Amino acid sequence: MSEKKVTMKDIADFTHFSKTTISRYFNRPESVSTENREKIAEALRVLNYKENKVARILARGKTEFIGLLVPNLFLSYYGEVMDSFLRSYQRYGYKFIVFAGSDSEETERKYIEELMAYQIEGLIVLTHTMSSEELASLPVPVVGLEREDKYIDSVNTDNYLGGMQAARHLADLGCDILIHFNSDARQEIPASRRIAGFTDYCLEQHLPYELLIEPYDNTYAHMKSVICRTANQVIEKYPGLRKGIFVSNDSAASILLNHLVSRFGGLPEEFLIVGFDNTRISQESIIPISTVGQQIDIMTDTAMQLLIAQIQGRTEKAGTAAAAPVHKIIPPILIPRATSMPEVAQKTE
Amino acid sequence: MSEKKVTMKDIADFTHFSKTTISRYFNRPESVSTENREKIAEALRVLNYKENKVARILARGKTEFIGLLVPNLFLSYYGEVMDSFLRSYQRYGYKFIVFAGSDSEETERKYIEELMAYQIEGLIVLTHTMSSEELASLPVPVVGLEREDKYIDSVNTDNYLGGMQAARHLADLGCDILIHFNSDARQEIPASRRIAGFTDYCLEQHLPYELLIEPYDNTYAHMKSVICRTANQVIEKYPGLRKGIFVSNDSAASILLNHLVSRFGGLPEEFLIVGFDNTRISQESIIPISTVGQQIDIMTDTAMQLLIAQIQGRTEKAGTAAAAPVHKIIPPILIPRATSMPEVAQKTE
Repeated sequence: MSEKKVTMKDIADFTHFSKTTISRYFNRPESVSTENREKIAEALRVLNYKENKVARILARGKTEFIGLLVPNLFLSYYGEVMDSFLRSYQRYGYKFIVFAGSDSEETERKYIEELMAYQIEGLIVLTHTMSSEELASLPVPVVGLEREDKYIDSVNTDNYLGGMQAARHLADLGCDILIHFNSDARQEIPASRRIAGFTDYCLEQHLPYELLIEPYDNTYAHMKSVICRTANQVIEKYPGLRKGIFVSNDSAASILLNHLVSRFGGLPEEFLIVGFDNTRISQESIIPISTVGQQIDIMTDTAMQLLIAQIQGRTEKAGTAAAAPVHKIIPPILIPRATSMPEVAQKTE
Repeated sequence: MSEKKVTMKDIADFTHFSKTTISRYFNRPESVSTENREKIAEALRVLNYKENKVARILARGKTEFIGLLVPNLFLSYYGEVMDSFLRSYQRYGYKFIVFAGSDSEETERKYIEELMAYQIEGLIVLTHTMSSEELASLPVPVVGLEREDKYIDSVNTDNYLGGMQAARHLADLGCDILIHFNSDARQEIPASRRIAGFTDYCLEQHLPYELLIEPYDNTYAHMKSVICRTANQVIEKYPGLRKGIFVSNDSAASILLNHLVSRFGGLPEEFLIVGFDNTRISQESIIPISTVGQQIDIMTDTAMQLLIAQIQGRTEKAGTAAAAPVHKIIPPILIPRATSMPEVAQKTE
């Protein structure tokens, strides 16, 4: 702790190079001959020089910081996406400065402003607070993930395909009526395409279906009360029918499952449930929940690659007019589990 | 994006002050008269000056960054602690650079080394990778949370009291045998005090008890297989007895609950369950789980205050010999729910 800081002058004195040469070594190492680079590197080792990255950032403009904005950690989906980004450090070396949404738009804007002042190299946005148009005007590369993305690069699950997969799976299992629970049908949100995929499949196949779109806020209590009320309507309306229920996310599907198990002492055969996301909750619920899995690690890796391409593009040719935004679509994978195929549970347990 | 950067010279030209005065404004604002500060502030507004914090860090040594190391996001406890720290931004203004443990000690050390190079102002550590002795030797303030803390400031729950609270609650409800499930009895881990509190209460009150300490790694599958096997032993060994089971964390308690509900079609009256942490999983399980609640927001706030006190102490009088580490203990709160008091469930649902 009381170590004396090694200065440029110390290194110059030790190596008998000029301070200018030492400075060039740190800022444009390729401008120093290999032989001299080796001498300086050896001096740094002997002098026990500790790199001061902040000083280097000033000289080279590279902070290796990425800002990450997530709406909440209430839905386990966001926690798992964040976890996946944090783990990408081992692959790409970027550190993440994380903001988990408060309810205050003002706080989020202030945070972004601060991040800009810290010269983050890029920004990954899962929050819905700012429009992509506003995000595109920020002076750093931006990639959106499962949010409105008209003006920015983005990575999304093929939500339309996911909705179709869920409907087809439930139809194949002989359901008499297909039902979809969702809380948000706004077209600009990529997840709303799940509704379109589900609906189009039912229409194409002439299957009876019902959409139950009722908004809930991000509190467990409110989500639970909405889901349980909707479930009770379904129970009353379709007695005796085999009901295939596709729920917009695993957290909500788990609430539905718990409600049915509590009410009937188990999941009655006439109910089949499929969630969305393949988050941990779908595997750890009292009965493993079938789900349309988002490939989170592939999505975060794709987002990192898009962001890094933008970062490198800027360094190479500053001032180039922005190209059209790139939108990457990752296919989801249907994972059948016990809530739609009881025989699957018996095989795997 | 093509905005021209406003330089010190621009501000000097605009205000007719010297560059030295402008520099003093940024680095030691108190050395500039109020009147002149106002003139400069107005100039910054007119010129649309964007602060470059990296440059200021160099001048003032304040990055407003805190490193946060969590072992995993598998146990929801760590996710909720991280969330609570991130939200403290609104109160204290610190940004968090987050590392979520990989299995590699090497990666964690490299990460810490990088954080040091970025001049973080402090470090909050929940991981168990490095000894507190090693952490204390780092050149920044460190606070530990629920980890070995001999040589560093720390905040822990009163785990001993929590173990006693759980035992007393189960004893008060007339259990014939008290049982504790845990996976880690290493004395240096604060959480192991839960075992001591539970045991001491049983001994003092001459209550029959059993400790079932079996390690599991941080995968759901392994945790589940250990918990279910242990549960089956208990079912066989104590037929007909009223069994009070205190489980070392809510995630494990939820697995136990699901196992019993699946096996018996509901939670039999002769089983009472109390978890630990009061994480979301305890409220969102199929039957709400009684738990010894950690006061996470108070813990993270206390940790921030300890860290900030260290940061300010260093600025004021650098070189002072380190005082003895401060260990703050936060009392837990027992929260009875339906797994130990079925009548509670009926009242609240």
